[in-house]
Amino acid sequence: MELQVIARDHACGARRGRLKTAHGIIETPVFMPVGTLATVKGVSPEELKELGATIILGNTYHLYLRPGAELVGQLGGLHRFMGWDRSILTDSGGFQVFSLARINKVEEGGVVFQSHIDGSRHMISPETATEIQMVLGSDIAMCFDECNSYPVSRKYARESMERSVRWAARCRHHHTDPQQALFGIIQGSVHVDLRETCLERLLEIGFEGYALGSLSVGESKEQMLEVMEALLPQMPVSQPRYLMGVGTPEDLVEGVRLGVDMFDCVMPTRNARNGMLFTRGGSIQIKNSRFAQDPEPIENGCTCYTCQRFSKAYVRHLFMARELLGYRLNTIHNLHHYLTLMGEMREAIQKGTFLQWRQQFYENRNLRAENSGGN
Amino acid sequence: MELQVIARDHACGARRGRLKTAHGIIETPVFMPVGTLATVKGVSPEELKELGATIILGNTYHLYLRPGAELVGQLGGLHRFMGWDRSILTDSGGFQVFSLARINKVEEGGVVFQSHIDGSRHMISPETATEIQMVLGSDIAMCFDECNSYPVSRKYARESMERSVRWAARCRHHHTDPQQALFGIIQGSVHVDLRETCLERLLEIGFEGYALGSLSVGESKEQMLEVMEALLPQMPVSQPRYLMGVGTPEDLVEGVRLGVDMFDCVMPTRNARNGMLFTRGGSIQIKNSRFAQDPEPIENGCTCYTCQRFSKAYVRHLFMARELLGYRLNTIHNLHHYLTLMGEMREAIQKGTFLQWRQQFYENRNLRAENSGGN
Repeated sequence: MELQVIARDHACGARRGRLKTAHGIIETPVFMPVGTLATVKGVSPEELKELGATIILGNTYHLYLRPGAELVGQLGGLHRFMGWDRSILTDSGGFQVFSLARINKVEEGGVVFQSHIDGSRHMISPETATEIQMVLGSDIAMCFDECNSYPVSRKYARESMERSVRWAARCRHHHTDPQQALFGIIQGSVHVDLRETCLERLLEIGFEGYALGSLSVGESKEQMLEVMEALLPQMPVSQPRYLMGVGTPEDLVEGVRLGVDMFDCVMPTRNARNGMLFTRGGSIQIKNSRFAQDPEPIENGCTCYTCQRFSKAYVRHLFMARELLGYRLNTIHNLHHYLTLMGEMREAIQKGTFLQWRQQFYENRNLRAENSGGN
Repeated sequence: MELQVIARDHACGARRGRLKTAHGIIETPVFMPVGTLATVKGVSPEELKELGATIILGNTYHLYLRPGAELVGQLGGLHRFMGWDRSILTDSGGFQVFSLARINKVEEGGVVFQSHIDGSRHMISPETATEIQMVLGSDIAMCFDECNSYPVSRKYARESMERSVRWAARCRHHHTDPQQALFGIIQGSVHVDLRETCLERLLEIGFEGYALGSLSVGESKEQMLEVMEALLPQMPVSQPRYLMGVGTPEDLVEGVRLGVDMFDCVMPTRNARNGMLFTRGGSIQIKNSRFAQDPEPIENGCTCYTCQRFSKAYVRHLFMARELLGYRLNTIHNLHHYLTLMGEMREAIQKGTFLQWRQQFYENRNLRAENSGGN
């Protein structure tokens, strides 16, 4: 897998590219909606296509527990199981094992943990995580790594990074599917030098793409930006750069500015289910009583299905009554917001106007904050 | 409003008709999906159209409490509020007041009750029920009546029926919207003579259609059929006959046989959310572990979106994981089952083969019961 860079903004690190998988072309920079359990919560595969999604993320940890990777494999793989014929990236399960499960032991061999669903005991190793992803048949697999929370001691960050590198080598060794790309994950917490060492070692092993892991886990925005600013220029130009689990619209804009090609985050979908909706002027809480009689759409000018058809008053009513359609309409709007944002950034990079676009993006938010006093 | 009867099966009471409202033509016999809170739970207006729904039901009681009829009126009425441009029938709230709310007083003036949501105190009278439905702007409104549970004493059934008739006269008197039809509701519990008296009095008042209320409320199938067999032939030929809140696929088939034109029931949608799916051979519980690895659709040959795209294994996985998409896929399948059944019955009546169709309908069920031992 190679990233074909088709445009570059010379005033910053932003780049516009194209990735090819067995399931199609991905225009980058790209946002990947999160489809944890073989479904992006609240929307159908057709709706995802209408929204312009070209790649989604599946969670290895969740799918391993429910319904089980073997079952998905027997039924023809994840694409077929969930009726999605475009690209899929699977994470390695590392993040969830360290954030959701109860860890029993982290050893050189792998991680012994208890399921967050029923407490059952499992072991995931670099080999099994790679195996599971091959069985799921995703287009891009991720190395099994230890995700650091923040803060951790420098000593722990180093040891953990070094183990993650040894695990990455085992993943590479165990990985045998030529149709599936394998990405390495750069660890090292907020320490730029540890991150650089990690990248160096991952480059020696060699992967089809490189990701920044363990960011947006509690550190400050400045710390996150410092790592990104230091690392992104050192990552291979001709390979995709993936910022894992990030983030807000602002994070995407800054990531793109610094040269990130791929993002994923539960924020648009999870916030939708909690009634938090994104607009150009910032976010709104739809349950706010000032929307109770509001005949306008969530965002004037928005071309999403929800805004084309329904008023804020109706969307609010559905949310207050916990109606299923409400979660769907909110999710469609938020994903549309994220995916449209990415489309605009791609266009701006191509035109060489990314930094102007970025300025306008921030002005839209300030303007609204000034006019209405924010939320 | 008049029912244009376009075909009749002379071997039974079944008839094929056409109803015209300001929002389109309704081919009868018709099943109306229930859209309690300005949404048919789990599906969008577009999905309802794709399923072939031409009329849905809205619940006056629920909409009165949430979001409030005035608000819906201010936003252009129920059609516009919920984005549904085909026909809507609203019930009068009578059934819900008597089944969901805590009744404080039933008086000649109306009913004082407490909301099932927050305990707030309300009064609904024939006049307010009529007013609310005019504000909602449904195509067909129902008279406010007292819904009897089963059993009630004959004395109570008579008194209640007589009050419902007096209320019906007040609804008729208060109703002033020429674009909206008003239907009378025949009460009298399981007593055919009381039902006949009720019908007679309603005919004197005069309505655009007549409904059988308080059936399928606990009485036996035989008692329900007895009332239907006695009353349906006495109901006006040129006006729609509506069997309220009924029922199973078998109930629909028997209702059509006896000359019912309109049905509504929460069964296809509510059961879908509980994982009970309808098939020609009977119903299945999707959570059953025998479906865990089943690559077949819910029903082979079914043309619904769910069956065209997804396996039972996937639908079961979504249901077990309580994924939003699962409720939707189940609802689409069940509504498709009901609406397809109605379409087939309309076709059979037109062809003069309704009773043969009915025999096949029952044979499909028996066949399955013999083969698999049922559910």
